[in-house]
Amino acid sequence: MTKTVTMAAATAGHAEGSTALNAFDNALLMAGIGNINLIKVSSILPPDVPVIELPKIKPGALIPTAYAAVTSETPGETISAAVGYAVPDDPAKNGVIMEFHGHASREEAEQAIRGMLDEAFRVRGEAMKEMKVFAVTHTVERIGCALAAITLLAEDDLV
Amino acid sequence: MTKTVTMAAATAGHAEGSTALNAFDNALLMAGIGNINLIKVSSILPPDVPVIELPKIKPGALIPTAYAAVTSETPGETISAAVGYAVPDDPAKNGVIMEFHGHASREEAEQAIRGMLDEAFRVRGEAMKEMKVFAVTHTVERIGCALAAITLLAEDDLV
Amino acid sequence: MTKTVTMAAATAGHAEGSTALNAFDNALLMAGIGNINLIKVSSILPPDVPVIELPKIKPGALIPTAYAAVTSETPGETISAAVGYAVPDDPAKNGVIMEFHGHASREEAEQAIRGMLDEAFRVRGEAMKEMKVFAVTHTVERIGCALAAITLLAEDDLV
Repeated sequence: MTKTVTMAAATAGHAEGSTALNAFDNALLMAGIGNINLIKVSSILPPDVPVIELPKIKPGALIPTAYAAVTSETPGETISAAVGYAVPDDPAKNGVIMEFHGHASREEAEQAIRGMLDEAFRVRGEAMKEMKVFAVTHTVERIGCALAAITLLAEDDLV
Repeated sequence: MTKTVTMAAATAGHAEGSTALNAFDNALLMAGIGNINLIKVSSILPPDVPVIELPKIKPGALIPTAYAAVTSETPGETISAAVGYAVPDDPAKNGVIMEFHGHASREEAEQAIRGMLDEAFRVRGEAMKEMKVFAVTHTVERIGCALAAITLLAEDDLV
Repeated sequence: MTKTVTMAAATAGHAEGSTALNAFDNALLMAGIGNINLIKVSSILPPDVPVIELPKIKPGALIPTAYAAVTSETPGETISAAVGYAVPDDPAKNGVIMEFHGHASREEAEQAIRGMLDEAFRVRGEAMKEMKVFAVTHTVERIGCALAAITLLAEDDLV
């Protein structure tokens, strides 16, 4: 859109809820992004955009977000979600964001992200300057959700 | 995004179509939102945003929308979709939107929304000022769709 | 959003990848839209918006896009994705975009789009001035993806 993204912030959360949608809502709240409108994007970090600590975002703001979420209603099951980004040496080039969710351990989720980012840079022919992964795991009690997200923000979105 | 949401409007529709996507398109047309671009959001009513009757929206406008849709190709099946919102006593706080779709009756869909909104307010520790639910049901003839939506609008989006 | 769409561009791509998400990423790269943020829309061509050759888009730009994608991990399988648009005689009215993806041939995908656009215009009571379909097919080696997309663009989005 006409929005100019000037910063990004990664976060993750996991929670139980009495329905799958409430578990998702509760995980978003735990992640600090439960009172904004997520707009799913697929999934590029614009050039020269720093990834910062999650700032305070205006309630109801429309926030382009790359995210992975998994919900399970199987008690005892382990679910994990992860996002990661990598930025290239060349600051004029964009970074890449990858998402993973599934019935997997946290380590498996993190490893999946790293592998996908490696391939994304290999096919782009870019040298990777930095890679970071954010993962969360949840053991389901009744209905659980794990999610990880990278929000794309502009100054206007902040409180 | 940089868009400032100043009003919201709820609607619902159901229809048959010769494909699942046409049934969805036809249900959108019946709901009065078939000639705009829906951008799915997850799903907060910004603070102090009134929910009004669906106004005339510019054709092709990009409209952030919380929606639930269900399509079925099983003749005789009952499908329902619902959305609902609740707003807090404190006008500085955001409201919450919940969606439901499934092989359920209209009453079950409405009840699901109410339960989810109750939990959403309980976990936020907010007192609920008002709750409204919009639901629609459809009995499938050949290929049917039921959908319910809350659009997030700005003055610029209107004809 | 407040964005004013002034042009649209169609594209398609297909690729292998070492994961489903990488195959999708690689197909996006082949289609020339691998370094932007796609925001899925559902799926109207605004009035009087020409569909042009894919221009060079700013890396990381947030681009509303109607798209269809299919991924398969079954070696030997044929997968196809298609998008198409139709515009009405009346330039004040919007066009319609339809998407298809599945385990189908390119011809089946194209035919599905044509049928859906025909119905969309019949139910709207609009005479069709022009219809175009963009399809791609892929025979899976290990993990493959086929995708077709129509991006909705503004001047600001271009390099």
